[in-house]
Amino acid sequence: MSENADAERLARDWWRTEIIEMSPGVIRFRGYPIEELIGRVSLAQMIWLMTRGELPSRAQGELLDAALMAGVDHGPQAPSIAIARMAATCGVGLNNAIASAVNVLGDVHGGAGEQAVELFFDIAARIDAGEAQDDAVRSALDDFTAQHGKFVPGFGHRFHPVDPRAAPLLGLVDAAAKRSEVSGRFAHIARAIEAQLAARKGGKRIPLNIDGATGVIFAELGFAPPLCRGLFVLGRSVGALAHAWEESQSDYRNKGPIPRHLLWTYTGPPARSLGNKGPTSD
Amino acid sequence: MSENADAERLARDWWRTEIIEMSPGVIRFRGYPIEELIGRVSLAQMIWLMTRGELPSRAQGELLDAALMAGVDHGPQAPSIAIARMAATCGVGLNNAIASAVNVLGDVHGGAGEQAVELFFDIAARIDAGEAQDDAVRSALDDFTAQHGKFVPGFGHRFHPVDPRAAPLLGLVDAAAKRSEVSGRFAHIARAIEAQLAARKGGKRIPLNIDGATGVIFAELGFAPPLCRGLFVLGRSVGALAHAWEESQSDYRNKGPIPRHLLWTYTGPPARSLGNKGPTSD
Amino acid sequence: MSENADAERLARDWWRTEIIEMSPGVIRFRGYPIEELIGRVSLAQMIWLMTRGELPSRAQGELLDAALMAGVDHGPQAPSIAIARMAATCGVGLNNAIASAVNVLGDVHGGAGEQAVELFFDIAARIDAGEAQDDAVRSALDDFTAQHGKFVPGFGHRFHPVDPRAAPLLGLVDAAAKRSEVSGRFAHIARAIEAQLAARKGGKRIPLNIDGATGVIFAELGFAPPLCRGLFVLGRSVGALAHAWEESQSDYRNKGPIPRHLLWTYTGPPARSLGNKGPTSD
Amino acid sequence: MSENADAERLARDWWRTEIIEMSPGVIRFRGYPIEELIGRVSLAQMIWLMTRGELPSRAQGELLDAALMAGVDHGPQAPSIAIARMAATCGVGLNNAIASAVNVLGDVHGGAGEQAVELFFDIAARIDAGEAQDDAVRSALDDFTAQHGKFVPGFGHRFHPVDPRAAPLLGLVDAAAKRSEVSGRFAHIARAIEAQLAARKGGKRIPLNIDGATGVIFAELGFAPPLCRGLFVLGRSVGALAHAWEESQSDYRNKGPIPRHLLWTYTGPPARSLGNKGPTSD
Repeated sequence: MSENADAERLARDWWRTEIIEMSPGVIRFRGYPIEELIGRVSLAQMIWLMTRGELPSRAQGELLDAALMAGVDHGPQAPSIAIARMAATCGVGLNNAIASAVNVLGDVHGGAGEQAVELFFDIAARIDAGEAQDDAVRSALDDFTAQHGKFVPGFGHRFHPVDPRAAPLLGLVDAAAKRSEVSGRFAHIARAIEAQLAARKGGKRIPLNIDGATGVIFAELGFAPPLCRGLFVLGRSVGALAHAWEESQSDYRNKGPIPRHLLWTYTGPPARSLGNKGPTSD
Repeated sequence: MSENADAERLARDWWRTEIIEMSPGVIRFRGYPIEELIGRVSLAQMIWLMTRGELPSRAQGELLDAALMAGVDHGPQAPSIAIARMAATCGVGLNNAIASAVNVLGDVHGGAGEQAVELFFDIAARIDAGEAQDDAVRSALDDFTAQHGKFVPGFGHRFHPVDPRAAPLLGLVDAAAKRSEVSGRFAHIARAIEAQLAARKGGKRIPLNIDGATGVIFAELGFAPPLCRGLFVLGRSVGALAHAWEESQSDYRNKGPIPRHLLWTYTGPPARSLGNKGPTSD
Repeated sequence: MSENADAERLARDWWRTEIIEMSPGVIRFRGYPIEELIGRVSLAQMIWLMTRGELPSRAQGELLDAALMAGVDHGPQAPSIAIARMAATCGVGLNNAIASAVNVLGDVHGGAGEQAVELFFDIAARIDAGEAQDDAVRSALDDFTAQHGKFVPGFGHRFHPVDPRAAPLLGLVDAAAKRSEVSGRFAHIARAIEAQLAARKGGKRIPLNIDGATGVIFAELGFAPPLCRGLFVLGRSVGALAHAWEESQSDYRNKGPIPRHLLWTYTGPPARSLGNKGPTSD
Repeated sequence: MSENADAERLARDWWRTEIIEMSPGVIRFRGYPIEELIGRVSLAQMIWLMTRGELPSRAQGELLDAALMAGVDHGPQAPSIAIARMAATCGVGLNNAIASAVNVLGDVHGGAGEQAVELFFDIAARIDAGEAQDDAVRSALDDFTAQHGKFVPGFGHRFHPVDPRAAPLLGLVDAAAKRSEVSGRFAHIARAIEAQLAARKGGKRIPLNIDGATGVIFAELGFAPPLCRGLFVLGRSVGALAHAWEESQSDYRNKGPIPRHLLWTYTGPPARSLGNKGPTSD
């Protein structure tokens, strides 16, 4: 009997969460009844509550909101968006198109924001340990490039000489710092990185990009790096949805990546025959 | 030569979109430069702009925001949430956990909002064609249940006798209708459906649920039904992220759905042997 | 106490399956110990055992094997393959690339085989109900095109005037029918459809394609139509893996669908400004 | 003009592959016309051809086949299988259920085979560089556990004291080595690891498991480690399909991981109120 009671307790305990509490007629998020939250808490504030455990200040919520909306889309050239559009012509639902799309926001396509935040936190830690800011930036950059190669996440862009999303986002952080709503230390760090990268490239500017700018915001707001990738996913889901919806209204069926007549370049062996013997008779 | 020019034009034309325009240093969404939108347009308003083509009114944006935040999570019992949590213990990124989760928001798990909106639009069309509201509701319900079976999307709930999310959402619509920000016709229709369902069940209430309530909002805001499922996906992604993040910080590796000692019930053939001959010698 | 025993029984009973039985040191599939199957049962035979419950005959296993290997790939123009290749440049694992790819094998991209089998079964049912074959084919085609539009699944191809995979597959069925290993009735039906389609198009041949040919095999083998799509998924996963693996060894990062300089054609509103008022002040 | 010719060449060149060549009516894989392969090359041999570039010997194909079929399923307790089953009750297609499932075969759930192969190759490299086998095994194990922690991929199992799939697979390798079809060096290395792990645990056996046994086969066959995870995905897709298909025929809708009455344990803040001020007025 007590064995059965233990077994049931173990089963109830298998899933444990601090996020949501439920009983018939009752839903509470982090302790707050959903009826109180609806109409008073925005989507961005809800994202904060769900992931962080408490509600954000108004300023924090607005900065998070800005970081999310700024990265929603970069056009059908981005793999995630191209995938969403192609999926929408294959006879699957919008949920599937979004899923196939955000699934590829990995270390290379969506991870730059996460990696930028890690770099910012690393520099802050070195400063907190006593290094001067410029030394901390230098040593962190050296260590990073030694381990990961030449791409410094958050800076430069293969399409935009200057990413038009960066300055406005940084401006929001500067304004919030002026009002003491955030510390501003990561905007400071980001600018220091930019200065040193330019120096290393003989004056050629390697400016902050969308990943670096949103990374500054996420760092100011104290989000753990892996969670930053998740936040980027939420924003990019919006672009995936919009593009999938638009493409689903075209006449294309099974739309491939390029016009069919362009096919692809085959670089494999020339035509050959199995001959008399195949592998089945080896 | 002109063949090549045509080929290039065809290639540039393969992907066409009204959503985003880009050139080095320039990103415009539906014509608006991103620099203008950052800090002035919220995430919910951005979702509207991306999917609908124009910015919403303040009231429209707030109703959309409410519909999105209300459906973010229903606990680890929801397949989407359970999947997100399990995925997070399998050594994949948060983007992958979110993807596997929202991928299952299909006709049964995420499609109810879409189907509720279709029902509401159907009833509105019948009214516009001259039917009295009660007749329109009756005939639409009859047709629906005849085609799809007994579950009427948007009403009733297998866990909550009364869904705590419905009344607050409907209240927001009522308030907006009072201010003439929306028509209120779909709140009206939804209440009429509720009344008739109760009558068919001898007085037993089959109240509006989260899918019906968000469906009222989406219908008031004029979203096409398939897009409503996409909007539900955006909201549910938040819950998927929060739960995946939380589970990723537990010690579980390859976490299954229930405690391992409970295994499963096997109902197949008893133990048997291939014997001398296997299918390879048939 | 008995409540707890009931609760535990309910928990053990939540997952029920006829497929696999397990205890420490023991794994049996449909009753057969895995130790007996390894080395005696091929992958294709295992697929049959897992999905159908019994082992296939040698001939059945070989036909299934052929249907699976024939559809593994159709080049980077196929959305599923393009998705696999792009995903592989985004810093996700091969499992994620395969997942994003097969996820889009929906009603339009992967569902044709399933729909062809449904059509074949429909015609067979009409024949079993007494219709002459040609009448059954005619009426079934009429009903299908009336409901689904002009594309008849399994016939014609937008790239190959004659699909090189169809005749060899049909040849395997003919040979097996000659040896009385299968009935051959569905090869017969498929040829009758082809004849009637040509007649409807004034003699222009609309020949059996890969979906129709594998559909003939699946129908001869008695696979339920939805399962046929799953079987196509298994085969196409091979192509997804091969292409993802190959692309992962290129230098591309975040590879988009077309060369970047081709961008896309923007067809939305011309550049415009938010002006003084944005939606936030509505 | 030559600019246009260059642009078209660049577009045709965007996708390059050695795997498949196509023109209307022609499909060749690695040079072999598909018509020659159908009926002569099995699924496993096709998997080899597609990923490796040449056809395998009969013995190689059979070993690959065995490694693939052995890992198809481990029951509804495995996250991948549970996900497939739950997805099938949510109103999505079998392709979506399979996708959500294999998507989670990450470093922890599917990566063990890949990591085992890396370990085996590491030891072989040390031996080739002059270390005695036992020293190579010892140093490699030390380095691995220092970097990755205590779990040695391929050995031990949290459910099976002895994995019933390991010995039969190893037996196939031993038999093939006897016939000089493979070298047998990795079976040798795996046994040496097993011996040393037991010694480190005071005699307690930490036997080869399914990941280690398939890893021995993949290493004997010369598959690169990341590709081994892809091969495991192909096999596990079979289990995902079978379980999703079976569950799709139950009456469950939106099936969660455990019976609903068990819910979950909530460990977050107690019920609380937003009070007068919410974050929006901060």
